[in-house]
Amino acid sequence: MSEPFRIGLLGHGTVGSAFEALLADRAAEIERVTGLAPELTGVLTRSRGDVDEILAASDLVVEVMGGLDPARDHVLRAMRAGKHVVTANKQLLSRHGEELWAAAREHGVQLRFEAAVAGVVPVVRVLAESLAAAHVDRIHGIVNGTTNFILTRMAETGATYADALAEAQALGYAEADSTEDVNGKDAAAKMAILARLAFRAPVHLDDVQYEGIEQITAHDMEYARDLGLGLKLIGTAERLDGGLSVRVHPAFLYGGHPLASVNGPFNAVTIESEAITEITLSGPGAGGPQTASAVLGDVISAMIPPASLPAARETLALVADVTSAFYLHLEVADRPGVLAQIAQLLGLQGASIRSMVQKGMGENARLVIVTHPILESKFYAAVELIAGLDFMRSRPRAIRVIDEDFYV
Amino acid sequence: MSEPFRIGLLGHGTVGSAFEALLADRAAEIERVTGLAPELTGVLTRSRGDVDEILAASDLVVEVMGGLDPARDHVLRAMRAGKHVVTANKQLLSRHGEELWAAAREHGVQLRFEAAVAGVVPVVRVLAESLAAAHVDRIHGIVNGTTNFILTRMAETGATYADALAEAQALGYAEADSTEDVNGKDAAAKMAILARLAFRAPVHLDDVQYEGIEQITAHDMEYARDLGLGLKLIGTAERLDGGLSVRVHPAFLYGGHPLASVNGPFNAVTIESEAITEITLSGPGAGGPQTASAVLGDVISAMIPPASLPAARETLALVADVTSAFYLHLEVADRPGVLAQIAQLLGLQGASIRSMVQKGMGENARLVIVTHPILESKFYAAVELIAGLDFMRSRPRAIRVIDEDFYV
Repeated sequence: MSEPFRIGLLGHGTVGSAFEALLADRAAEIERVTGLAPELTGVLTRSRGDVDEILAASDLVVEVMGGLDPARDHVLRAMRAGKHVVTANKQLLSRHGEELWAAAREHGVQLRFEAAVAGVVPVVRVLAESLAAAHVDRIHGIVNGTTNFILTRMAETGATYADALAEAQALGYAEADSTEDVNGKDAAAKMAILARLAFRAPVHLDDVQYEGIEQITAHDMEYARDLGLGLKLIGTAERLDGGLSVRVHPAFLYGGHPLASVNGPFNAVTIESEAITEITLSGPGAGGPQTASAVLGDVISAMIPPASLPAARETLALVADVTSAFYLHLEVADRPGVLAQIAQLLGLQGASIRSMVQKGMGENARLVIVTHPILESKFYAAVELIAGLDFMRSRPRAIRVIDEDFYV
Repeated sequence: MSEPFRIGLLGHGTVGSAFEALLADRAAEIERVTGLAPELTGVLTRSRGDVDEILAASDLVVEVMGGLDPARDHVLRAMRAGKHVVTANKQLLSRHGEELWAAAREHGVQLRFEAAVAGVVPVVRVLAESLAAAHVDRIHGIVNGTTNFILTRMAETGATYADALAEAQALGYAEADSTEDVNGKDAAAKMAILARLAFRAPVHLDDVQYEGIEQITAHDMEYARDLGLGLKLIGTAERLDGGLSVRVHPAFLYGGHPLASVNGPFNAVTIESEAITEITLSGPGAGGPQTASAVLGDVISAMIPPASLPAARETLALVADVTSAFYLHLEVADRPGVLAQIAQLLGLQGASIRSMVQKGMGENARLVIVTHPILESKFYAAVELIAGLDFMRSRPRAIRVIDEDFYV
């Protein structure tokens, strides 16, 4: 039986309850990775729980209440009592960060906050650890999923800002009061935290200039298309003339920019530094399970920094035959009945055709077929049969296709 | 004066010498972050240095020799002597990983290897730490920059495989002998390491099925465009039917896939898991400075896991007025001389026009101008002057444009 690791949970809204469920689900794996058995020793909600009792019974406190008060007081008391803290609270860190980080140093505890910035996108860890001693020149970020969803819909459908906002609210991508999302203040708080991490200078929310997307029109989107641009709400933190600039505003991006293709309720951050050129990190911006996953990653890191890999678990069997869609390239004699025979052989193996392009080349024709997913062994069996047909002019060539229904 | 932290360097090729330079450049910052003063205590090259002396004089050994022999022996001896190891050696880990990880556990030392997989893209850290207890379902990766460069050039220019390979070699993106890049074996070694990390089952290079890009033709690229697909060399590691499949092969991606827009010598990895949906990480795949930066991030993590943020350094001044390109949206009366007056006012403030679109709307016209970069205060001064012109039909609207000359 491993030693227990006692976790107190402050806050039990969407993120708090998702965290409780995820912790229960992953407890055995966490014990295997860390050698400690995680245990939820108390939950503070609006109506129940006593913060003193929870602090006394915990090695680490997860703060997912949000807001400044009483979250600030709880977090400070936890650290003064020698407890590690994991928080998802961007308001708190962007206003009282220096006080909190100083308390963590003073009391020798960890204060981790991956979930405060870009949901599950691990930008805090990468800045704080992978790039701990790097000279970062600039960060660009799409750090608010609500506004990115709205702008994506306006670009895709020609919707007005008001209609796209209403759609975001209907789909749960925007809250009923989304003022701080659409006016840029939420993104500004996140950029203050990222700037502090990247440049190691104190940056307060009040230091960040911000503009929102409320004034963007369908016309802007139309012209953007004409000009080959995409419109995003971009947070920027950069070194300039020996100083810093941290700001949030709508900006057009040329198509080649790594953030230009980040669509829907996603977040993404680009970190530029001479030694690394640039890194881009992207993923879902928010949502209870995603935020809870970021919180759990921090909890595990606080439990024990992984010095090396745990031993491999029981062997998983290697699967040799997998399912894939295919692109099939055929050179055939251009005569009647050819396509029918090919389609029949594919069909006999269970391959169905998704799309097809045919191009003539004098007496011959090139036929390119894209199939729906099929077990590879069956597809290749069909290809062998097709290769033996008398109208084939060269060896068939097959390349796998990874489907667009990618997001789980 | 801080305690020293003694680093031995095994290998002094492109990566080794870049690491030596980067360590010297960042030494003061590393000392500030870790509280220890890093010190290079020995270098092993082909012609000089004694591995026993270097091991005896080091707290940590950086292995960037490559190859299996004598790298494997050196790394094992270092760990048995209680030294941490940071390695960039994918061949070694994909063939002898279990032996090395077991030695690290047995001797209580860290074995870190971010640079072995995707250059500066922090996928090893994210899998090992952020997602330490996550249930990963699938990884897709573009983990070989040489082949991605070749395929990108074929798609962009219609070049043949042979011509694109020659171009990659001329530009230094492919080595003279690039066999293991183009046949998929290099990517297979990296996918073996990622699969071990993600699924915690032993995966050997021999377990990975791989195909290369040597058979891809310009025709394939042409059809891909017609079908809305992009062609990449994709590594896949996924859970299937209670087992695992790890493989590398060329594959078409639909345009919406996060890897479809990864072009040139870049690497990118997508990690899918139910709790996080998916994360994508991308950046330059290789190059001496980039690999050295990944090695240095590992060295710093081995020196001391950052429990919390170091105190903020001296305050950096906040810069309020920055340079930006702008999109300017104007509604004007459609009459002669309008454009000349607007251009004159922009020019007086130093704003030059990059592109322009004009659309008539009856008696009025909509004019959209994109400028070259200009100091924001000067641009807004021009806008104020333009707003006062008698032919203006509504308030001018300005949105920033982030330029495409993004890569430093």
